[in-house]
Amino acid sequence: MDRLQKQIDFLLEVDKLKTILRRSSITDGSRRENDAEHSWHLCMFALVLVEYAPENTDISHTIKMLLVHDLVEIYAGDTYLYDEEGNKTKAAREKAAADKLYAMLDKEQGRELKELWLEFENCDTNEAVFANSLDRLQPILLNYMNKGALWKENNVHKNDVMKHSYRLTEKATPKLRQFACALLDMAVEKGYLEE
Amino acid sequence: MDRLQKQIDFLLEVDKLKTILRRSSITDGSRRENDAEHSWHLCMFALVLVEYAPENTDISHTIKMLLVHDLVEIYAGDTYLYDEEGNKTKAAREKAAADKLYAMLDKEQGRELKELWLEFENCDTNEAVFANSLDRLQPILLNYMNKGALWKENNVHKNDVMKHSYRLTEKATPKLRQFACALLDMAVEKGYLEE
Repeated sequence: MDRLQKQIDFLLEVDKLKTILRRSSITDGSRRENDAEHSWHLCMFALVLVEYAPENTDISHTIKMLLVHDLVEIYAGDTYLYDEEGNKTKAAREKAAADKLYAMLDKEQGRELKELWLEFENCDTNEAVFANSLDRLQPILLNYMNKGALWKENNVHKNDVMKHSYRLTEKATPKLRQFACALLDMAVEKGYLEE
Repeated sequence: MDRLQKQIDFLLEVDKLKTILRRSSITDGSRRENDAEHSWHLCMFALVLVEYAPENTDISHTIKMLLVHDLVEIYAGDTYLYDEEGNKTKAAREKAAADKLYAMLDKEQGRELKELWLEFENCDTNEAVFANSLDRLQPILLNYMNKGALWKENNVHKNDVMKHSYRLTEKATPKLRQFACALLDMAVEKGYLEE
């Protein structure tokens, strides 16, 4: 049972993703969202918005990527998109976290899951472009629903969102891109986000 | 943009799954688990334990089922596995919830997602058997990690677990079944669960 016990230990270890808090609130504004429920929500986005993926996107592969894309944050923590200092060390911290986490599994299985994460990070396949654009769209929607409370708290302006969401606002397929840009314009208009 | 707006509204509505609490605690025991992070965790179980699925199981299909399997609880609430009264009305409440929720989407897309949920409930495909067995295994593991605190609080005995987890303890493939039965024996031995 050695191999199965390792897999179970890994599945119990990743339970910690439920305790990593993000800088977005859930839609009712009652509390911050955690990485585990965020990952589930993104998979739902992929399932429902599949028709806006680039042509020939394997949506099941996108979903697998989204399931694991934040696991490294169990050890490396959530680095806020707009935290310039934190982002300087993010890659190294996350690389170390991945090495530690995936070593819990047998070599080949650990490598497979780690590769899903690397593909998401490198963002040069259709599946990864779609996954990354959803990972940018979802927090914008949650922030919009909460009238920009966390944008304001963190002094985030529209320029910052545009710059750090280029995988959505530039790389996504036209309809999703247009929707996101219109949403940001509306956020500015309503005073949720500063120009 | 009508169709896209409906899809976005649906994705914001399902955000409520993050507020539906289950009768299991997360592994560190700090709080109860919610349905959204539970759904994510089950997808991770499917991804990692795929080799214990019945032969010819399409694991991507299992994952899609697991993503949506608890959505009806947004309106119907979480019915505890061992709540006999609640379980008498569960099917009707969940059917009404599904009708309401999936009507938010265009007809065909609503039907597709609803069928994933029905397939999970009917549990007569390989994909659904595997999904259901994981849905039983995960809370047993979480309860075990918390030394049976919620089993004790709810006066749940080993017989109850065996009876309500037959999709795991009888229908799962041999290795997963053996693992689950051994885990329950250990829980009794350690005093986490009453015989």
